[in-house]
Amino acid sequence: MKPTNKQSWRYKIHEIIYEADTPMGKLFDIVLLILILLSVIIVMLESVQSIDVKFHKLFYVIEWIITIFFTIEYIARILTVKKPKNYIFSFYGIIDFLSTIPLYLSFILVGSNYLLTVRAMRLLRVFRILKIARYVGEGNKLKKALVESRAKIFIFIFAVLIVALISGTLMYLIEGEESGFTNIPVSIYWCIVTLTTVGFGDITPVTPAGQFLASLIMILGYGVIAVPTGIVSAQYARKEMDDYVHVNTLSCRNCGESKHRDDSKFCHKCGWDMQLDNNDKVQ
Amino acid sequence: MKPTNKQSWRYKIHEIIYEADTPMGKLFDIVLLILILLSVIIVMLESVQSIDVKFHKLFYVIEWIITIFFTIEYIARILTVKKPKNYIFSFYGIIDFLSTIPLYLSFILVGSNYLLTVRAMRLLRVFRILKIARYVGEGNKLKKALVESRAKIFIFIFAVLIVALISGTLMYLIEGEESGFTNIPVSIYWCIVTLTTVGFGDITPVTPAGQFLASLIMILGYGVIAVPTGIVSAQYARKEMDDYVHVNTLSCRNCGESKHRDDSKFCHKCGWDMQLDNNDKVQ
Amino acid sequence: MKPTNKQSWRYKIHEIIYEADTPMGKLFDIVLLILILLSVIIVMLESVQSIDVKFHKLFYVIEWIITIFFTIEYIARILTVKKPKNYIFSFYGIIDFLSTIPLYLSFILVGSNYLLTVRAMRLLRVFRILKIARYVGEGNKLKKALVESRAKIFIFIFAVLIVALISGTLMYLIEGEESGFTNIPVSIYWCIVTLTTVGFGDITPVTPAGQFLASLIMILGYGVIAVPTGIVSAQYARKEMDDYVHVNTLSCRNCGESKHRDDSKFCHKCGWDMQLDNNDKVQ
Amino acid sequence: MKPTNKQSWRYKIHEIIYEADTPMGKLFDIVLLILILLSVIIVMLESVQSIDVKFHKLFYVIEWIITIFFTIEYIARILTVKKPKNYIFSFYGIIDFLSTIPLYLSFILVGSNYLLTVRAMRLLRVFRILKIARYVGEGNKLKKALVESRAKIFIFIFAVLIVALISGTLMYLIEGEESGFTNIPVSIYWCIVTLTTVGFGDITPVTPAGQFLASLIMILGYGVIAVPTGIVSAQYARKEMDDYVHVNTLSCRNCGESKHRDDSKFCHKCGWDMQLDNNDKVQ
Repeated sequence: MKPTNKQSWRYKIHEIIYEADTPMGKLFDIVLLILILLSVIIVMLESVQSIDVKFHKLFYVIEWIITIFFTIEYIARILTVKKPKNYIFSFYGIIDFLSTIPLYLSFILVGSNYLLTVRAMRLLRVFRILKIARYVGEGNKLKKALVESRAKIFIFIFAVLIVALISGTLMYLIEGEESGFTNIPVSIYWCIVTLTTVGFGDITPVTPAGQFLASLIMILGYGVIAVPTGIVSAQYARKEMDDYVHVNTLSCRNCGESKHRDDSKFCHKCGWDMQLDNNDKVQ
Repeated sequence: MKPTNKQSWRYKIHEIIYEADTPMGKLFDIVLLILILLSVIIVMLESVQSIDVKFHKLFYVIEWIITIFFTIEYIARILTVKKPKNYIFSFYGIIDFLSTIPLYLSFILVGSNYLLTVRAMRLLRVFRILKIARYVGEGNKLKKALVESRAKIFIFIFAVLIVALISGTLMYLIEGEESGFTNIPVSIYWCIVTLTTVGFGDITPVTPAGQFLASLIMILGYGVIAVPTGIVSAQYARKEMDDYVHVNTLSCRNCGESKHRDDSKFCHKCGWDMQLDNNDKVQ
Repeated sequence: MKPTNKQSWRYKIHEIIYEADTPMGKLFDIVLLILILLSVIIVMLESVQSIDVKFHKLFYVIEWIITIFFTIEYIARILTVKKPKNYIFSFYGIIDFLSTIPLYLSFILVGSNYLLTVRAMRLLRVFRILKIARYVGEGNKLKKALVESRAKIFIFIFAVLIVALISGTLMYLIEGEESGFTNIPVSIYWCIVTLTTVGFGDITPVTPAGQFLASLIMILGYGVIAVPTGIVSAQYARKEMDDYVHVNTLSCRNCGESKHRDDSKFCHKCGWDMQLDNNDKVQ
Repeated sequence: MKPTNKQSWRYKIHEIIYEADTPMGKLFDIVLLILILLSVIIVMLESVQSIDVKFHKLFYVIEWIITIFFTIEYIARILTVKKPKNYIFSFYGIIDFLSTIPLYLSFILVGSNYLLTVRAMRLLRVFRILKIARYVGEGNKLKKALVESRAKIFIFIFAVLIVALISGTLMYLIEGEESGFTNIPVSIYWCIVTLTTVGFGDITPVTPAGQFLASLIMILGYGVIAVPTGIVSAQYARKEMDDYVHVNTLSCRNCGESKHRDDSKFCHKCGWDMQLDNNDKVQ
């Protein structure tokens, strides 16, 4: 069946926007990436007053160019995709929409304070770049290791919060408001700052008792930092081991069981003599 | 033997409070968890003066509701348990008691300063939540790894303290009182802050000699942080390996080969049916 | 063929400068190392005003001695090397040139500000010392582990930057200019300071919402620090394992068993003399 | 041969002081440990002016008691040891001597400033306590892991210093004296503070270029912290593996080679049929 003219036009656009294998598709991806990075840089530079005063007009022009490109791209995506509704309400669909509207919104919502928040939405476009990470390959391995450790990491964060809660309250009782520990939430904030070894120094204990408790919290934190590191290390080490040890890819001719030890002569599941298979091959 | 009316009533309450398998038991656990978290949040918010002024009455009402619920729960626990004395003097028994009495105590001990300390006791209820960690499973594995590393961690903390003691005294001699190193305990506190890489910056060396010694301490601390991490990592890695290789301690009756995989039915070396051995045991 | 007199002279100088096996070669390397370290120390001490005032003349004399030695060395290197052009435009060639010229340049470019930058070029000589690391052996192993982890480390830095970008913008919106978060780039700088657990404390959140978000960022950073550590740990652990098991890729000619220990002379499975195989190859 | 009276007396004292197996020896060790800790605590408390004013006389009396005990102990050690000269000039001999003399020295060297330094010598007694670590057992394992990693750790510290040197000079050139980077040594000190993620915040970059370079240094430091951790982790993991994998303790009857793989049937060195040995045992 030959596609109609319109279908063919749609198909080509779809290929350019959604696929990265053709030269045009690659060019589109690179242009998109540059425009996203440009829009992020402009949001950053606009927040620096001395730069904004000088280049305000230039930024406004670039903003318009980016917005027009994003608008065309958004409409093209809706027109060429098979199920437009699925795309519009998908994660990337919503981000694409939010990335397009800030400039249009700025006409409706007038006021510098609102504009600031609206412009920040631009930042969400960065997630588009994350799709690029897919190409690097290692990204998935990293993600997988993190996902598999999520139960352990959850327990760990829970433990940190309990420790911060208890020691935060103790520090509040010991140090009091004069030292900057004005209330328990602030005191817990201080504890997290200390346990994570960040240590801003905006709030610090001044009484001997407070400094002693702080020392205990720090040594605890110092020991505790080992835990999440150990978790991910072990997870990674296990991944590496998969490549390394014991298990071969042969499957038993009789029962289909795989993951045999390299030195297995008989299938450990059904007792089949696996050496017969090998001899067959040789003969 | 049919239980008497009273026994049956006791039995039902016991099931609700102590067991989590029935729908009522689950509901009780969730209500208890919410009330504990609520009481912790109220203690936190009451310490923020601006919030306390606005909602003082509301907090007082919620405090009463929680206290009444906790009182009923505490009495129910004593009545339904087989050996009330064991419960009362157990770890959780004492915490339950301390969680219940603050409001009653505030009538006897009048004075804002005392009330503060009394209210903080509420925080101990948080330990109840820790019982929830039991359900997650991973918690035990983490705990086991920490317990097995405790001898190494003890040695490590001992080493950190010795280093802090010696370098703290040296810093006190070099920097003196003008730089904030007012006495040796404060100087040791500074050393722990630095060795753990927290670095508040409330006390900092100002003389070249002090800054040189501080640099040495920091590089030492930087190298030393590797030690506890390495300890827990190795402990974890070994745990993972146990799961991975799934090696059991059975040895084949026919050829004596050991270290079979957990799911091996036949010896991977001689093909002997290892399930026969097990059947022998059963019969 | 007997070398001419000039060739012999060239050859001797080449041996002294480029090779470290002869006594003269070793002496040359040590003298060079001392002069490089001396020049670096002088650059450092000259920047300390109180020291520079006292010893300015002494520093000037040592500067001249070092410069003359470096000039002679640079000319000798060009004269004795086979392909002078290749050396001049090589990495070390450019560094050697830049290490030699500062004093000469200071006659042309007069002005304390320019001199400062010119003197700093001296520091590049330090890279010469890095060549020494070659002798230690372990350096290569470390380098190899880092190179093999580079894909993972790249992904990791990319992830840190994305997190810093998003949370930096959020902190700017929440805290605003009064708290020191004057613009988005400064806010991102603060995020990197926090995520890496450095925590200078020059900028700190003061609003409750800002402190809450900061706590989230810190706990995230605390968990995230595990990732690069885990990566390098696993890489290292695998390297160690290679050394440990000493498994080679040879397979037994008789029974096909592979993964023998490096020092195995006979197959550990069938007793076949594996040295015969090797002898076959030699003959 | 019966020992003379004097010999017997010497022998008993020697047993008490140098050995910890007899009840008297244990008691002596504990008393010594308490006195060392007491003397360290007194040095610490004397440095706190408010405490020193109150308890100066008490501290002076305890100081005398400790000094007398240490004097007797020191003389006894010299009298009972076989080769007194070896003891006097040994590491612990010198520390014992230095621990004993401070009070006597204070009569000769009058002046508060000198006394301070003299008192600090007391701290060296702490090394005596380190001998206790011997009993714990794990200490040696930790020490061994550190010693085996020393080449790697040396390379690592060398790398950190080079990075601190180069980036310290760059920060000095970029930030200059107004921001606190008054000279290159201070700038290098700042770099070490930052690379080790301590981050005091006494000196912080204020220019955009300085903050950008600081961000780079921090991310580098963040990645670099993985290296020493990975080193010690891998070293530890290898130790654990020794207990775990492959290698059994059997030695070949024919050639004496040990460390065979668990599943080896023939000696991998001489080809001896090791199953014959096992059959012999069974029959």
